[in-house]
Amino acid sequence: MERYNLTLNKIWEYVKEINGDVEVAHLPPHGNNIRSTYAREYERTLRLADGLRRLGIGPRDKVATMDWNTIWHFDLYWAVPGMGAILHPLNVRLAPEDLVYIINHAGDKALVYHRDFAPLVEKIRPHLKTVQIYIQISDGAGAVGKDPEIEDVIKSGEPRPFPDLSEDTIATIGYTSGTTGKPKGAYFTHRALTLHTMSSALMFSVARGFARPECAEEVCTFLQLVPMFHVHGWGTPWTFALMGWRQVYPGRFDPNHVVKLIAEERVKSLAGVPTMLYMLLTAPEFPKYVNKIREVKPIFVVGGAALPKELAKRAAEAGFIPRVGYGLTETAPVLTLGYFRPTEKLPQDVEEYYSVLTATGLPIPFVDLVVADENLNPVPRDGKTMGEIIVKAPWVTPEYLGDPEKTRESFRGGWFRTGDVAVWYPDGRLRIVDRAKDVIKSGGEWISSLQLEDLIATHPAVAQVAVIGVPHEKWGERPVAVVILKPGAAATEQDIINHLQKFVDAGKIPKWWLPDKVIFVNQLPLTGTGKIDKKVLREQFKNALK
Amino acid sequence: MERYNLTLNKIWEYVKEINGDVEVAHLPPHGNNIRSTYAREYERTLRLADGLRRLGIGPRDKVATMDWNTIWHFDLYWAVPGMGAILHPLNVRLAPEDLVYIINHAGDKALVYHRDFAPLVEKIRPHLKTVQIYIQISDGAGAVGKDPEIEDVIKSGEPRPFPDLSEDTIATIGYTSGTTGKPKGAYFTHRALTLHTMSSALMFSVARGFARPECAEEVCTFLQLVPMFHVHGWGTPWTFALMGWRQVYPGRFDPNHVVKLIAEERVKSLAGVPTMLYMLLTAPEFPKYVNKIREVKPIFVVGGAALPKELAKRAAEAGFIPRVGYGLTETAPVLTLGYFRPTEKLPQDVEEYYSVLTATGLPIPFVDLVVADENLNPVPRDGKTMGEIIVKAPWVTPEYLGDPEKTRESFRGGWFRTGDVAVWYPDGRLRIVDRAKDVIKSGGEWISSLQLEDLIATHPAVAQVAVIGVPHEKWGERPVAVVILKPGAAATEQDIINHLQKFVDAGKIPKWWLPDKVIFVNQLPLTGTGKIDKKVLREQFKNALK
Repeated sequence: MERYNLTLNKIWEYVKEINGDVEVAHLPPHGNNIRSTYAREYERTLRLADGLRRLGIGPRDKVATMDWNTIWHFDLYWAVPGMGAILHPLNVRLAPEDLVYIINHAGDKALVYHRDFAPLVEKIRPHLKTVQIYIQISDGAGAVGKDPEIEDVIKSGEPRPFPDLSEDTIATIGYTSGTTGKPKGAYFTHRALTLHTMSSALMFSVARGFARPECAEEVCTFLQLVPMFHVHGWGTPWTFALMGWRQVYPGRFDPNHVVKLIAEERVKSLAGVPTMLYMLLTAPEFPKYVNKIREVKPIFVVGGAALPKELAKRAAEAGFIPRVGYGLTETAPVLTLGYFRPTEKLPQDVEEYYSVLTATGLPIPFVDLVVADENLNPVPRDGKTMGEIIVKAPWVTPEYLGDPEKTRESFRGGWFRTGDVAVWYPDGRLRIVDRAKDVIKSGGEWISSLQLEDLIATHPAVAQVAVIGVPHEKWGERPVAVVILKPGAAATEQDIINHLQKFVDAGKIPKWWLPDKVIFVNQLPLTGTGKIDKKVLREQFKNALK
Repeated sequence: MERYNLTLNKIWEYVKEINGDVEVAHLPPHGNNIRSTYAREYERTLRLADGLRRLGIGPRDKVATMDWNTIWHFDLYWAVPGMGAILHPLNVRLAPEDLVYIINHAGDKALVYHRDFAPLVEKIRPHLKTVQIYIQISDGAGAVGKDPEIEDVIKSGEPRPFPDLSEDTIATIGYTSGTTGKPKGAYFTHRALTLHTMSSALMFSVARGFARPECAEEVCTFLQLVPMFHVHGWGTPWTFALMGWRQVYPGRFDPNHVVKLIAEERVKSLAGVPTMLYMLLTAPEFPKYVNKIREVKPIFVVGGAALPKELAKRAAEAGFIPRVGYGLTETAPVLTLGYFRPTEKLPQDVEEYYSVLTATGLPIPFVDLVVADENLNPVPRDGKTMGEIIVKAPWVTPEYLGDPEKTRESFRGGWFRTGDVAVWYPDGRLRIVDRAKDVIKSGGEWISSLQLEDLIATHPAVAQVAVIGVPHEKWGERPVAVVILKPGAAATEQDIINHLQKFVDAGKIPKWWLPDKVIFVNQLPLTGTGKIDKKVLREQFKNALK
């Protein structure tokens, strides 16, 4: 008998059959509310796929999207892979130039865009070499321009069944943000995403701290906050459909609006980057809804960057249950979640408790994860020794699209090198301490630039700080701190060193981590995504210790 | 990058790492209590695998077991597939002759047996052509005979890591009970069992009626009641390990002892055939524990045969939550579970409620299930039209071992034909009404022998009944009832027909289902597993309507 193929279609058929009457709601800030169900959207995805087919989209064709978290984006997540084509969500925050590069590099055949991006599409359209089909999502606000509207595409299609697909069919592609060099393309098969969905769904249903007891008996609500143009929106559109949860799609991110939705729709779980959580907590409308939120106690899964302890505490006070997740564009994304073991006793001490809570978590099933030295051997689980996180999982991209050189750099011996530097605790948890390219290699040992930055930032005069490794004759590299002072504040190099010395005395960092130099500046160079560009800094100060 | 292989080893490593401190307890009736943990058993399975290696077991060698539900059986479930060998649990209830046939047909190289089966092993040993290695599980009661003891095998091994295996490596084989003809062999790869485990674990964690809210926050206990020689003990040794539940292994089935364990170990979930449930409810010691059981409310998943409404009601009154499951030796086994949709309102009417509760359930994720006519087309979901259940799933055996003829009969167009006849309800649930070989084909329509038997059995004078199809010139086949009366009771053919006529009048069955003849006998022929042998009956009464 032939192999049973693991495809997203099998999950979608299951969702339709079992969870068909559960609501999927599109509730954007501008009020074009649509309350649908999985069963209704299933039928619409069949029509959408057939409509795309009639426009000329076939198997293996790439369909790019530029969209908020809308119900059409949800439909495209199922319909495009379902018909054997390849979904390619584009990060709408990128510079137009990068978008053009990515679309041309991927060879996208169609571009489905929300009307909010119509001006952007007009700007890049002349430079797109492969796109033949443009479709607009007007989201109830009236179409602009001449491209066909997605509802008309859906209406033009018949609800023909999805084809039988091999599980090795590529379902999606996505590009890294490209902080160093050009964006790199990752791709994911139906098998990869199906297993990612199963493993995630199991964790959200069974893992301590993620499973919600009451949701075993009532229909609970998930709100899709993570932009769906970021690594499959972390996979949750598929995961929570399989789990039979109600889903809310909030459209364009508007913190006041999301806070209102969390309260009024009784959202039990959502996920996002720390900045989003911060924006919700500080939204002007937040106080109006805080009591309701305290009553519902939503789980907020923070990923994309470390969850600072202070933010975790603040979220907990505001009624959220803060949790962490970790993953990358190349890993579909989920690798770890900050859950607890069934038998685990959490620390009573508040600081220790939040240390466990904000660590990078534990691997989910089918993720082989090692914190490794440069020979890919595990470092000791001592909470001190740094190493690079390397992983194997069914949902890691097999390579970078059309980039054998970067592939060779990042894939070794069956392992994917994440480029993230972490320490490994005796309990198996890990904590990311740096990016591999930013970690400072001094005398064969590693110094975490992030950790030094966190400590320097606690000095009252410091507004911003970057710590970089600068070439040194004897030690290879030594740390140098580049500091912006707060307006009106004053501090000397010695003040900063004395401040750090207190952490040395307390045993928090070793003495040899103290920077060799502190440089004061008025401005720090930024990357396209708003992070401090350490590559530029390293070039600028490469002779600082000569 | 090479494929990530889905193997039981990946699950076992995850269990060790995350659920390592959770207890696995061996608590047999004779009191050789062992309270261990997953982490400790993990280490022991590495040693056991290495010990088996030293005795000459290699990849693809078959290791048969004859054992109760012991902690050693649990170890063998992980160690044998883990080392790349093939686990072959033997049904210890079979006749010695059948065991000899199966072991020789499979070509087992080793036989690991519980000391309780030492006399049986002595009886069959001279007839086993391929077994070179015998190992005894003495279970704390002292070894008998000269075969090595399993604890010595474990002690002889080093905790060497399991090898990397392809997911297509065969992990287990199992034989059908062979009610018709010789037992048939099914086999299951690591991929099949890994996906079976994932899908089952998700259902037990998220599906309405199976998920237990409190177990999201506390360590709950599963008791392995289904004999592990029956289709992987329904897979639960693997499933509940992945879920992080505590497990209790009760040794030889002793109803009084199991009832005590359920109460004292606060068992939250267990599974078994209806007879086992009945034996628990009627165990002499049951009244002693009923209050505790009512407090814990264990879920009891009934499979292997239909759950009669009366037994379900009785179980519910006694404090159990009765649930159903359905599967076959060929399907690993789980195909459906009697869970509810997230949005489902259960009927208020008690009879209707128990009808839903005792139906054969809904497919679990990755089971494609159709109730089909003879051309494999779906029958209407009208709750009336009968069809054969046909399935596809990643965990269906690809064929019968060395039996191309039976394979051709049962596998068609990518579908496995279960041989079970069911009706399909509008809500997607199904209810098995007969075995395909027992269903009566009258004038091109099907009559359920089971349903007629159930109705005839409600006549106060009837002790046992079998309804068979007997050749008929005009209709092809017509139903004939073969009845044993209760001692001292009396009834005529017309009494039985009049009794059935009431159900015709009430619209429960059509008039043309009434048997053409009722034959009274003193004895019914039985198969090796104690079921009524309809094949013999059909032969005996083939001329009854001529």
